[in-house]
Amino acid sequence: MSASGPDAVQVEFEGPLFRVEVQTWGGRRRDVVRHPGACGAVVLIEGDRVLLVRQLREAVGRALLEIPAGIYDVEGEAPEDSIQREIAEETGHLVTELERLGSIFTTPGFTDERIDLFLCRARPDGDPQEHEIDVITMAFGEAIRMALDGTIQDAKSVVALLLTRERLAAETDRADGSPH
Amino acid sequence: MSASGPDAVQVEFEGPLFRVEVQTWGGRRRDVVRHPGACGAVVLIEGDRVLLVRQLREAVGRALLEIPAGIYDVEGEAPEDSIQREIAEETGHLVTELERLGSIFTTPGFTDERIDLFLCRARPDGDPQEHEIDVITMAFGEAIRMALDGTIQDAKSVVALLLTRERLAAETDRADGSPH
Repeated sequence: MSASGPDAVQVEFEGPLFRVEVQTWGGRRRDVVRHPGACGAVVLIEGDRVLLVRQLREAVGRALLEIPAGIYDVEGEAPEDSIQREIAEETGHLVTELERLGSIFTTPGFTDERIDLFLCRARPDGDPQEHEIDVITMAFGEAIRMALDGTIQDAKSVVALLLTRERLAAETDRADGSPH
Repeated sequence: MSASGPDAVQVEFEGPLFRVEVQTWGGRRRDVVRHPGACGAVVLIEGDRVLLVRQLREAVGRALLEIPAGIYDVEGEAPEDSIQREIAEETGHLVTELERLGSIFTTPGFTDERIDLFLCRARPDGDPQEHEIDVITMAFGEAIRMALDGTIQDAKSVVALLLTRERLAAETDRADGSPH
C-alpha cells in the first residue's frame, strides 16, 4: 500500500481557496481538492463557558454553529499564531492559554484538508472584526450536549468539543489525585 | 442571515465524484464542492470488538484507519441500504442491527458533503470484495483510545466512535437501572 505519489497530475480548477487536481494512481483516476489546511479551537472563558460562532455557510445553504476557526491563508504564519488571530478577529477575545488537541483530516476521500485543533482559554479584548459572524457563549456542558445530540453538525466542532471534554476530565482526575 | 440561495452559479469543474461551482452571494465569491454525500458506520462484532478498514487515501498521500463508509453513488438507494451494502463489500459482514448515530457536515466552509453515521452490529458472511482495503478488528476500547490520541485522524471516524461510546454507555446505564 505504497503512497509514493501519483503517476500524473492535471490541475483542472484553481480558485482563491482551493484547486482541483485530477490525479492518476496506477491507472485509476482520483479527483483531489488541494486545500491549504485550517485551524479551529474550543475557546473557554470564565472557567466553564465556551465561545461558539454562528455564520451562514453558503456551501450547505444554512447557518451553522461551530467553534472559531480559520484557513491557513497567511504565508509562514504558525498554527498557534493563526488560531489566536482568528479568535481575536471572530470573537474579540485574547487567548491567555493554548494547548493542542490534535489534528483531523476532514474528508480524506477527496481532499488533503487537515485541521489542527486547539483548546484555548481567553478573555474579552476589543470587538469582533467579522460582522457576519454571531458570537454565542454557552455553558461548556450545553455545547457537549449539542455535539452529542446533533445540534452541532460541523465535524471539526464535534471532534474538538469531545476531545476537550476528555482533556478536562483528565485534568480533573489529576487534580483529584485519582489513579490513572 | 438568510440562506435564500446564491445570486449566480457557474459550474467550473465536473468529475465523476464531485463538481465545483463558483457561486456569488451578495457580491461575494464562494467556491463550493458539490458532493453526493456519504454514509459511515461503527460496526460491532462479537459484542465488544469493532471492524475498521485501512486503505490508501490518495488525497492525503497515505493509508488511513477509518470506519467502513461509502459514497451515495447508487441512485435512489436509502442510507440504511447503502451502509449495509458498503459493510458487506468492504468487510464481508452482514448487518444484524442498525441504528442512526447522527449526521455531520465534513467541512462546510467549502463543500455540502454530509455523512450519515450509523452504529451496526454484524456477523461474518462471505469475503470482502474490495481487495485494496485491509479489514482490521480490535477491541472497541482500543479504537476509542486511537480516536482520542490522534492515531485515527479521519474526522467521521472520530465522531462516530465517540458518539458510539456515548450510546453504549447510555445503554449500560439503562440496563443497570441507573437514573438519568
